[in-house]
Amino acid sequence: MLIVMETGVTDDRVASVVRAIEEKGLKAHPIPGSLRTAIGITGNQGPLDPAEFEMLPGVAQAIPVTQPFKLVSREVKREDTVIEVSGRKIGGDAFCVIAGPCAVESERQTIEVAKRVKAAGAHFLRGGAFKPRTSPYSFQGLGAEGLELLSRARKETGLPIVTEALDTDTVDLVAEHADVIQIGARNMQNFSLLRKVGRTRRPVMLKRGMSATIDELLMSAEYIAAEGNYSIFLCERGVRTFSNHTRNTLDLSAVPAVKRLSHLPMIVDPSHGTGKRDQVTPLARAAAAVGADGIMVEVHDQPERALSDGPQALYPDQFDALMKDIKAIASLVGRTI
Amino acid sequence: MLIVMETGVTDDRVASVVRAIEEKGLKAHPIPGSLRTAIGITGNQGPLDPAEFEMLPGVAQAIPVTQPFKLVSREVKREDTVIEVSGRKIGGDAFCVIAGPCAVESERQTIEVAKRVKAAGAHFLRGGAFKPRTSPYSFQGLGAEGLELLSRARKETGLPIVTEALDTDTVDLVAEHADVIQIGARNMQNFSLLRKVGRTRRPVMLKRGMSATIDELLMSAEYIAAEGNYSIFLCERGVRTFSNHTRNTLDLSAVPAVKRLSHLPMIVDPSHGTGKRDQVTPLARAAAAVGADGIMVEVHDQPERALSDGPQALYPDQFDALMKDIKAIASLVGRTI
Amino acid sequence: MLIVMETGVTDDRVASVVRAIEEKGLKAHPIPGSLRTAIGITGNQGPLDPAEFEMLPGVAQAIPVTQPFKLVSREVKREDTVIEVSGRKIGGDAFCVIAGPCAVESERQTIEVAKRVKAAGAHFLRGGAFKPRTSPYSFQGLGAEGLELLSRARKETGLPIVTEALDTDTVDLVAEHADVIQIGARNMQNFSLLRKVGRTRRPVMLKRGMSATIDELLMSAEYIAAEGNYSIFLCERGVRTFSNHTRNTLDLSAVPAVKRLSHLPMIVDPSHGTGKRDQVTPLARAAAAVGADGIMVEVHDQPERALSDGPQALYPDQFDALMKDIKAIASLVGRTI
Amino acid sequence: MLIVMETGVTDDRVASVVRAIEEKGLKAHPIPGSLRTAIGITGNQGPLDPAEFEMLPGVAQAIPVTQPFKLVSREVKREDTVIEVSGRKIGGDAFCVIAGPCAVESERQTIEVAKRVKAAGAHFLRGGAFKPRTSPYSFQGLGAEGLELLSRARKETGLPIVTEALDTDTVDLVAEHADVIQIGARNMQNFSLLRKVGRTRRPVMLKRGMSATIDELLMSAEYIAAEGNYSIFLCERGVRTFSNHTRNTLDLSAVPAVKRLSHLPMIVDPSHGTGKRDQVTPLARAAAAVGADGIMVEVHDQPERALSDGPQALYPDQFDALMKDIKAIASLVGRTI
Repeated sequence: MLIVMETGVTDDRVASVVRAIEEKGLKAHPIPGSLRTAIGITGNQGPLDPAEFEMLPGVAQAIPVTQPFKLVSREVKREDTVIEVSGRKIGGDAFCVIAGPCAVESERQTIEVAKRVKAAGAHFLRGGAFKPRTSPYSFQGLGAEGLELLSRARKETGLPIVTEALDTDTVDLVAEHADVIQIGARNMQNFSLLRKVGRTRRPVMLKRGMSATIDELLMSAEYIAAEGNYSIFLCERGVRTFSNHTRNTLDLSAVPAVKRLSHLPMIVDPSHGTGKRDQVTPLARAAAAVGADGIMVEVHDQPERALSDGPQALYPDQFDALMKDIKAIASLVGRTI
Repeated sequence: MLIVMETGVTDDRVASVVRAIEEKGLKAHPIPGSLRTAIGITGNQGPLDPAEFEMLPGVAQAIPVTQPFKLVSREVKREDTVIEVSGRKIGGDAFCVIAGPCAVESERQTIEVAKRVKAAGAHFLRGGAFKPRTSPYSFQGLGAEGLELLSRARKETGLPIVTEALDTDTVDLVAEHADVIQIGARNMQNFSLLRKVGRTRRPVMLKRGMSATIDELLMSAEYIAAEGNYSIFLCERGVRTFSNHTRNTLDLSAVPAVKRLSHLPMIVDPSHGTGKRDQVTPLARAAAAVGADGIMVEVHDQPERALSDGPQALYPDQFDALMKDIKAIASLVGRTI
Repeated sequence: MLIVMETGVTDDRVASVVRAIEEKGLKAHPIPGSLRTAIGITGNQGPLDPAEFEMLPGVAQAIPVTQPFKLVSREVKREDTVIEVSGRKIGGDAFCVIAGPCAVESERQTIEVAKRVKAAGAHFLRGGAFKPRTSPYSFQGLGAEGLELLSRARKETGLPIVTEALDTDTVDLVAEHADVIQIGARNMQNFSLLRKVGRTRRPVMLKRGMSATIDELLMSAEYIAAEGNYSIFLCERGVRTFSNHTRNTLDLSAVPAVKRLSHLPMIVDPSHGTGKRDQVTPLARAAAAVGADGIMVEVHDQPERALSDGPQALYPDQFDALMKDIKAIASLVGRTI
Repeated sequence: MLIVMETGVTDDRVASVVRAIEEKGLKAHPIPGSLRTAIGITGNQGPLDPAEFEMLPGVAQAIPVTQPFKLVSREVKREDTVIEVSGRKIGGDAFCVIAGPCAVESERQTIEVAKRVKAAGAHFLRGGAFKPRTSPYSFQGLGAEGLELLSRARKETGLPIVTEALDTDTVDLVAEHADVIQIGARNMQNFSLLRKVGRTRRPVMLKRGMSATIDELLMSAEYIAAEGNYSIFLCERGVRTFSNHTRNTLDLSAVPAVKRLSHLPMIVDPSHGTGKRDQVTPLARAAAAVGADGIMVEVHDQPERALSDGPQALYPDQFDALMKDIKAIASLVGRTI
């Protein structure tokens, strides 16, 4: 159920509707808009009666939400969500670029790459401190030490940090260092982890699972929103198909599909989406052209020595060139970069 | 095996090498280049000895081809193939736009749509006279009459025609009317049909099968080339995956993947690739940005009355807008449209 | 539309209803049943009015068919179709085994393998004379000579022949030699070919395409039936997925799914379905257990020398062992082998 | 690296080799065999020198392991792993049947279903207390109370319990009540959870992820084994493909594929694998025939009222019939049930 308040209603009115909802044992999610405030209701077992809410003072309308996802749906909020992180915007007219190494490997590497991607115009630094690896015997990331190095790179460059939280035990530690918490593809349906990041107040970047439908992706975002954290953006990173010329098949149609159904921003990761360095730039251009809200790209100053995913990391010079292409295309489709 | 001739060699020399190849029971495929001529050899059962050919007068080098596809591979021909049809180019610096209705339905519809897409800047008119339909009870196209209508539309607008040949029986009839013969996704491995169009001298547009790998697509192109028809371009039109928000999953990474392996042009069909009108424009933009050599788009003046695939046809006004977007992006990536 | 005749109605009555249908420009397909005759109607553009037919003498009921496939649907014919070929049955209580080499390579090989599979209890000999090959440079089969060799093997062993027709040009030639015409996976939607085999009176084995849904498979069978050939059985041979430990992913659930929707028999091809010799026997056992009407298995006396698909061919001794397993399982699920 | 000890070597010798390994900063995994003991070594960053270990007293041979998975590979242990739980065996000649409701809903339902499946011959009771649900608003399971109900059902029927652990926070609680801890498909690459169950001493059933390859499945099992818990069995439960007639595509070829590579038992879940009640029995029969070590089947006394996955739950009578079929087929392929 979505409660739409009258225009110009006072904060007190909103607060008293929230109280009324909570008194029924339900959860209220106030959603301020440019014109008027709405309040999403979750926690009901069966359908609710709109009449029960429409008689409350200040309520314009109570609308049943037909999609299985509520808080993240366009039905509930028409306007695009725009997330602000240290002065950078994700969503709306902005086109955001997140770049950096797959894994944080050393202070030298992290700061060197951070400086290079900043100089090229990136808005965020990415880097994994906790790495999900198929093999227990592969490099698992530097952990807490890696988070420290990311903090140092932020201090040095001013770039806010995007880094992954792998499990409920380390969410709080990650949240201390990260400006944006990444939830990886393998954890898209790790519901305990989704709930936990939903209870932090850090923005969350949620990656699409390797075989997740758009509905499932939005339901996972709903898990985060249902805990009260509405600063969520999504990331298409390729899906598993028979097509074997790339590591994954980048499903760019996910971007317009998500935008029809949801107000959340969606970016694209052409590095994991293709797994091959020479595919990253053309697919990054395509992501900008298709209407994505940004890209996340892996860059390494010595890809051939990278401890993970070297073959998909761009050389810094390639990233410089990519930024030029992207800026031109993004501005063509009405984006500021 | 690829024979590279010395630079500046006479046509006679080339002809005598061709004869020498044919005398061994093999097939010779001369491939003129801007610098020098090469000759592809096919028809051998096992490996050939380079020395046998290198001693022929005028031969610079004989190179074994490691890819399973020979004539269509970059190993055999480094330069991009550019196909010319009635003054329009496909490949190289050109970005070509093929547009028109899914099926030819009537003279009025065909000519009306042809005029509209021409006015908007399309280079070719598409339209199906023979339609492959999942159900025997669906509209199967106007057949020969449809081809006549396409010829009339060409006369009226000057647009060359792209239309599908469905079987060996009708290839010759289609070749009489079509400027480019389309081989559809369902026929990508109809090898008898591939051989037959390989024996015509019409340019061929070969669509990727719904579950074909890039290697299989190039092997199918090789079937056409092996018959002596080298005017081939490819078309990505989406593949079958679990992902259910679009009719197919448009695999744009196929474009850079093909360009690494082959000299053939590749265009993208965002209409079949998505199956949804509101997805066509963003994915067409992405196709231009990823480096495709063109797009094929379905346009109908009354999509809601279309006899096939109405939900994916653009309204003429939408096509006008798409052309503007595409022109801007294509020129950004160094293409003339 | 399905016309159900009254029980015990005379042949004349049926004939006059057929005439009445044809006079309306429609096509009538009489379907004799054990209790009473039905007549399928196809060829209508829009919905038909049952009342128009129910007033004809001898008609019990006219029932609109809701499935997109008509003649092959269970709605139209409740009882399982049983096809008889030279005294062997396909469908019903029978479990049929089709075995032989992938390709006919020589008289010695064909007859040797035919004798071995007959001795082991196979009911049909398979062998490709016309081979669809991904590469134009691979062995394409012995063609007409291969068909002669198959006829000789039939004479020698009494085994009826299953062999593939690749195109409309060779259907008639194949029909002269084959007891069952195979339509391969790559041709499942070669509609011209389907129509052509629909006009022969040979039984047809239709293989599921690599990325075909069950509905599409049944629609392709409908193409054959709509031409008047009702002796059709289907074959699951694996579909394309990301799963890379086998050549294809054998989708055994297709068998019960087809049986719910259609009266046609369905067999399973574990050789192409897995592509690996050591997977063939376990998956053949599973096919028998899941309720398939038979299996088609590749056997070669010298797999390591096979001209195509050697790695998936069983040695004759392995086939002997497989037959023992299959007989036991088939009889457990109520089948006679 | 795998250390093979001499036959008849004393426990002291084994212990001193373990110490020698640990002194090099590596991890030793003793693997007792019927003939002789082996010791797996993990934790090395690069390749180890066999000579370093072969000179230790009692060591017969040091063999580098070529597969990316070590402890779970057949290279390291030739004999099938057999897991014993309260007198029931999983693996070897046994065929084990795990049955029960999708979710524990009430004491009545749990005990009623437990009694029914026990009477039919099931060896284990399954039932979810913690349920992973796509929507945050769906029934999430009874949690701790559900575990209590399962314990009560075990007391009542003697059936050991298989139930899912969803996150690291609840593993210990689940381990207190469960005889076998299930790791679900969505958590197959939740590496923190895998490590945590690896540190319990409960047997673990690891389900294949929806888009996991066999190698990835075995690598996830390796995570558990690397922590010292070797009582692992795997479960095929269907993968995501384009094929839409079932909820997932049950990939039965996974069973022989796993058995070639690994000594771990593998069972099949036809309930999730198909998602449709009328598909469960045929696919369960196929699972027995393909050589699986068991099946896991959902049974509910009132499927139409089930709080989750009702459409795939068998009625108790259907389960009775299934058990008869399975017993016959399992014994045919050399299994005791």
